[in-house]
Amino acid sequence: MPGSPRHLEHPDADRIVLTDVLLALSDPARLSIARQLLTGPLEVAACQPVDGDLPKSTLSHHLKTLREAGVIRNEPAGRQRLVRLRRDELDARFPGLLTAVLGAGPGST
Amino acid sequence: MPGSPRHLEHPDADRIVLTDVLLALSDPARLSIARQLLTGPLEVAACQPVDGDLPKSTLSHHLKTLREAGVIRNEPAGRQRLVRLRRDELDARFPGLLTAVLGAGPGST
Repeated sequence: MPGSPRHLEHPDADRIVLTDVLLALSDPARLSIARQLLTGPLEVAACQPVDGDLPKSTLSHHLKTLREAGVIRNEPAGRQRLVRLRRDELDARFPGLLTAVLGAGPGST
Repeated sequence: MPGSPRHLEHPDADRIVLTDVLLALSDPARLSIARQLLTGPLEVAACQPVDGDLPKSTLSHHLKTLREAGVIRNEPAGRQRLVRLRRDELDARFPGLLTAVLGAGPGST
């Protein structure tokens, strides 16, 4: 059912724009969420920054920003929704970017 | 003369924050300026995005954002002011970041 809430828009890999990705990851909460997705997909409800318990509306906004920038996919999986990092696509388009940003050490928020 | 307009504040290298750097580089004009600085320092007046002729006030704002984030230094050099990329310091703090961001190809604005 395209257009239904279950199917959200995602930019094609070749339309992902670097400055959109940088802006999406420039927020500490969104950066923290993206880092947690390095180890695998998470249910939407489990997507929280490590140091926070954000209101659902704030979290939805962050996930929307990450999705529209092309950083994550948010797709139905059975009765749940799974959020996953678009790692392979981003690595192909911007080599080294995710490794540098998500693997950064000191001062990394 | 610390405090005079000639001496601007710059964050110490070990206080540079990743999300500040990402936010500074998430604007296409600032990203373009940073890329031009890869080949060496420029006078302030020569810092323009490749595709633009920005008003002086806009340019000053962009340079301030890049400076306060720790991406560039803006320092007096004789009667001029030179802007330079803090390449070595950023490479040491966030390995691979500038290479990935400034060297990015398609969709790179």
